[in-house]
Amino acid sequence: MSATDTVTLTLAQVEELCHSVLRRHGLGEAHIAPVTATIIAGERDECASHGVYRLLNCVHTLKSGKVVPDAVPVVDHMSMSLLRVDAAGGFAQLAFATGLPHLVEKAQATGIAAMGINRCVHFAALWPEIEALTGRGLVAFACTPSHAWVAPAGGTSPLFGTNPIAFGWPRPDGDPFVFDFATSAVARGEIELHRRAGKPIPLGWTIDAQGNPTTDAEAGLAGALLTFGGHKGSALSAMVELIAGPLIGDMTSAESLAHDDGAKASPYGGELIIAIDPIGFLGGAAAEHVQRAESLFDGITGQGARLPSRRRFAARRRTPEAGCRIPRTLYEELAALA
Amino acid sequence: MSATDTVTLTLAQVEELCHSVLRRHGLGEAHIAPVTATIIAGERDECASHGVYRLLNCVHTLKSGKVVPDAVPVVDHMSMSLLRVDAAGGFAQLAFATGLPHLVEKAQATGIAAMGINRCVHFAALWPEIEALTGRGLVAFACTPSHAWVAPAGGTSPLFGTNPIAFGWPRPDGDPFVFDFATSAVARGEIELHRRAGKPIPLGWTIDAQGNPTTDAEAGLAGALLTFGGHKGSALSAMVELIAGPLIGDMTSAESLAHDDGAKASPYGGELIIAIDPIGFLGGAAAEHVQRAESLFDGITGQGARLPSRRRFAARRRTPEAGCRIPRTLYEELAALA
Repeated sequence: MSATDTVTLTLAQVEELCHSVLRRHGLGEAHIAPVTATIIAGERDECASHGVYRLLNCVHTLKSGKVVPDAVPVVDHMSMSLLRVDAAGGFAQLAFATGLPHLVEKAQATGIAAMGINRCVHFAALWPEIEALTGRGLVAFACTPSHAWVAPAGGTSPLFGTNPIAFGWPRPDGDPFVFDFATSAVARGEIELHRRAGKPIPLGWTIDAQGNPTTDAEAGLAGALLTFGGHKGSALSAMVELIAGPLIGDMTSAESLAHDDGAKASPYGGELIIAIDPIGFLGGAAAEHVQRAESLFDGITGQGARLPSRRRFAARRRTPEAGCRIPRTLYEELAALA
Repeated sequence: MSATDTVTLTLAQVEELCHSVLRRHGLGEAHIAPVTATIIAGERDECASHGVYRLLNCVHTLKSGKVVPDAVPVVDHMSMSLLRVDAAGGFAQLAFATGLPHLVEKAQATGIAAMGINRCVHFAALWPEIEALTGRGLVAFACTPSHAWVAPAGGTSPLFGTNPIAFGWPRPDGDPFVFDFATSAVARGEIELHRRAGKPIPLGWTIDAQGNPTTDAEAGLAGALLTFGGHKGSALSAMVELIAGPLIGDMTSAESLAHDDGAKASPYGGELIIAIDPIGFLGGAAAEHVQRAESLFDGITGQGARLPSRRRFAARRRTPEAGCRIPRTLYEELAALA
């Protein structure tokens, strides 16, 4: 992309843009900072699809009435190791931020803790949640259903969401080990991009409405995405439906899509986060074993393979100085919404 | 396989064969019942590779001195939600059985609990552990490293184990939802079978010792297996290394292989099991939401897709009457060991 096709914003300008767009469209004051923080993190890490681009989703979801703009999250302590946060129909970020100190405290107290977020609207990646926990020295796992866009392996029609799974491991001297991926073969947005470009999609991404493999992006969007990794990815996707759905008293992806009722808003439902404190298992030996885990990372990078999130962390060191390059058309669209 | 190529044993005869072989090769009395129970479960469910066939591994591991035949597991309670069981170099089954009631008790007390098994020799599938927990109404997750046979995505040499991940969800009126799969593209035994049959293997299973894709089984065994699902499977495999390795103070797959030192014994190291009680999150509403999860299973089977483990459960209903068909050559080999 040439420089004239893009606008370069400082992180402070990204923040200003987010605040302005979100406030103008009626998002409650308490939500503006946490939602903005997620979007800034996306731009900062050059995850274009999770940066200011997502403001379009936020605005659409706000306009559709499918998010409660001034929802007040309520924390419910179930036990020494469990809590739920009722997001009360609001965006997930404030609910997560509200529950986070309690989750950390419980994980530190008993070694393992889980937080269910209920009735939240989720439009972002999971790694911001993961990194909030690895930053506190905890091992973290998170997942959430979405809308029913994905067929189970061997099936013919959408049932699962794109159901991301994310994991993080704190590293003593550097970026954490973090992955965050959809259990669908690709992101739905990737197929949308092919459709807009009039390009065929690879076999293995989707099936059409009759359940047949297709390379036609339009037909694929009308049919269903496939899971990654065949029946194994499908099994993992079902696990996400269960543990971030009924286990915490919340919706499956099919129920979320039914709730959406054609509004094309962001998915609505639950999220499950599990945090484990290495000190819980290891006490004073935790630092030694966490250090020993470094041999695994050395074994990966030493043979030329990459650690997940490596590109994000490299961007994170660059953008505070270099700024964030945003497609001009997107910037103009957002400026008009600000 | 024709009837003359096989021998049909009742489950009681399978038990007798296991007892006899294991006792003859010096396995301690306390270990014989739990190890036998795992092998019977494999035969009963017609998982040939996890049935009496595994007695050959057991015997080899016993002969190699890589398992402590009379190890006495020791339970260590770290917190209300965590415990470790030191298998003291013995097979994993007795350690799991020893820790199980404590894991269940902790999961019921705080809603979520984790058990690390340390210094165990693991030769079996994970679903017996999973089903012990779903049978008590708990949601269960388990994983374990193995020997370093699998290359990370984008890499050229073995680092990860075949690192299985298993999950279970209790169902009120029937078989639990259970999956248990290797994070490698295939089981190592599958490649071994191709090698013995002189058949090529599909691309995507292995790389050769130079890190190049290969369809030659021999070259693949000398090189490395690949993970399932590309970089996503690779990320999951790394997660297993971390959470069932250093997190519980135990070995990675590379360390396990180094410990083996050419003995070709079963992998040695740790296993992590997490149990979650739906009642912890949901209290009196648990039964209602567990029932609601049934709509997900109906959504899978209703479109002609299969639930994982379905074939195992079907076999389980058949074999108590019909018996277990075992290849005659294998039976004769085992009878000579009995």
